[in-house]
Amino acid sequence: MNLDRISRLQSKVAPGKYFFISNLINVRYLTGFTGSNAALLLSSTSATLATDSRYEIQARKQVSDLQTVIGRDFPELLLRQLPKSEVLVEGSNLSHNAYRSLSENFEHVFISTSGVIEHLRVVKDNSEVQLIKAACEIATNAFLDVITNIKVGHSEKVIRNSLEQRMRELGADDVAFESIVASGANSAIPHHEPTDKPVQNGDFLKIDFGAKLDGYHSDVTRTVVIGKPADWQVDLHAAVTKAQLAGRNTIRADIQFKDVSQAVNQSLDETRYLEHFTHGLGHGVGLQIHEDPFFGRVEDAKIASNTVITIEPGAYLNDKGGVRVEDTIVVDSQGYQNLTNLPYELLEL
Amino acid sequence: MNLDRISRLQSKVAPGKYFFISNLINVRYLTGFTGSNAALLLSSTSATLATDSRYEIQARKQVSDLQTVIGRDFPELLLRQLPKSEVLVEGSNLSHNAYRSLSENFEHVFISTSGVIEHLRVVKDNSEVQLIKAACEIATNAFLDVITNIKVGHSEKVIRNSLEQRMRELGADDVAFESIVASGANSAIPHHEPTDKPVQNGDFLKIDFGAKLDGYHSDVTRTVVIGKPADWQVDLHAAVTKAQLAGRNTIRADIQFKDVSQAVNQSLDETRYLEHFTHGLGHGVGLQIHEDPFFGRVEDAKIASNTVITIEPGAYLNDKGGVRVEDTIVVDSQGYQNLTNLPYELLEL
Repeated sequence: MNLDRISRLQSKVAPGKYFFISNLINVRYLTGFTGSNAALLLSSTSATLATDSRYEIQARKQVSDLQTVIGRDFPELLLRQLPKSEVLVEGSNLSHNAYRSLSENFEHVFISTSGVIEHLRVVKDNSEVQLIKAACEIATNAFLDVITNIKVGHSEKVIRNSLEQRMRELGADDVAFESIVASGANSAIPHHEPTDKPVQNGDFLKIDFGAKLDGYHSDVTRTVVIGKPADWQVDLHAAVTKAQLAGRNTIRADIQFKDVSQAVNQSLDETRYLEHFTHGLGHGVGLQIHEDPFFGRVEDAKIASNTVITIEPGAYLNDKGGVRVEDTIVVDSQGYQNLTNLPYELLEL
Repeated sequence: MNLDRISRLQSKVAPGKYFFISNLINVRYLTGFTGSNAALLLSSTSATLATDSRYEIQARKQVSDLQTVIGRDFPELLLRQLPKSEVLVEGSNLSHNAYRSLSENFEHVFISTSGVIEHLRVVKDNSEVQLIKAACEIATNAFLDVITNIKVGHSEKVIRNSLEQRMRELGADDVAFESIVASGANSAIPHHEPTDKPVQNGDFLKIDFGAKLDGYHSDVTRTVVIGKPADWQVDLHAAVTKAQLAGRNTIRADIQFKDVSQAVNQSLDETRYLEHFTHGLGHGVGLQIHEDPFFGRVEDAKIASNTVITIEPGAYLNDKGGVRVEDTIVVDSQGYQNLTNLPYELLEL
């Protein structure tokens, strides 16, 4: 339960209006309630949580200082007894059919909003940064433990399993997302699903993974080589690593996102790999693995202090191999703190 | 790529109309494409997949016989060049804001549908049943391997980790959902998140879990006891097991869902635990862990042959303990095939 977060949102709700919050991640952010089915109704002075009977005990424990109602039909529970009002809804999360059903079943005026709470979530408070940092440490420690045991003949899936098992042993509640373990030509597929393909001498091995802890995520990628690298691998890896550093060296609070993008792109242009960088440069990390802000969608906006974000350029040579280097960082006025401390040199396993 | 599934859906799209499919699970069901960002446009005679550049290589491999377009703005890619048309959309999946953006940016008439493809997915074909069966076997074998090693003092999280690790060793791509491992009084919380609480002599241990394989899920629950059970535990466990069997004994193709619900409820009523059964009786299982049909939403409907569904009554005594017994079954004209073969007696660990 986080009264400060609820208060910050309530200050944006005019007296007499309501905000019907249906996005579970946002309900969790505001209340601390972690059940899989809930909605929250806020006014400028009140807050009521609705959940179903499976979570009655859990709600009593997690949100004891919030009014709670139990049932299946959350709009009915939360909106029926209100006088006719303007009710804000989360239009980017609520389905069109759900919105239509609200409009048909209630006399209220439903006003679609977008990203109001997601915007509040961009700047992390200290407790959030600490959880993300801890999730990052689990991930990086697991990586260092596991890579020393990787041998020629291990499959991508086996390596994935070892890494994920080690993160759990180190305290992760879960993995942050489906880990990418991509070897050889598969490393040229930015989002490759691990297969039974065994790793071979000379393969790039690209590992993009993270841990989840108390709802918070981490995200990190390193690309290593099995045995000795070929010249093209050394060159490609050095280019991406240099571009990633150029991005990190640029970042600090109050610059624009595009300043970072331009530094990365200029570096990749100089090394002639820019055309092989085919995805976004990074994204916010928090209660979701991918959340606001996203590089590429907010290029003219300024980066706020205490934003947690990834910097993850890559370059992919079809049917040959690819490299991505990614860190999760927290931005401050001087620059940033790197939450994923792993080596940047091309490790030879 | 499944031309039969696409054809079945195309037969529901009138000539000159289009169906814009944005639900990724449905895109996967129809095309076999497993990337995390895609949309599909169907007419009665055509099909085009849109995805972004991260998945270009993957799309070429997975949907080689489908026209594919690459970019970020799927509506722009798929809808801009069409003559003014009626375009069906998935209104229960598409957000209200996305729907509004379509209506504002295109001259087409957008018609909101609900559950069209989800309805096709209820009846499984043989390849789907085989994958769910394999996912169930991984789960049940992992359970049998792991429970023999559970000792007093092991935490819920440690037991969860062992079980999930074993499922992966046995070939699971992932867990089907966040496993529930609930001991002692925690077992009274239907959807409990595993904690560091160590299991103790006399605890109920309720384990609800499943494996994921090639996109398909399994779902099974058993409740065991640590050491010797008390009388109330024997009684509660017997009552839930009996009710679950009453449900299974009732089920076969073409009966109504409520026939099963009534059999379960009558059994729990006879043993005086009905008021402690506080959640739905079961749900479809397939490409989603919870999918149509849901007991409780379709009570008057008839169960179709080759529906895969869970039967999972439970009874929960607050602050004391709870029991759930759950199988994943596939319905046939004679009855059902149980895909999760585990003992029903109260196992004493």
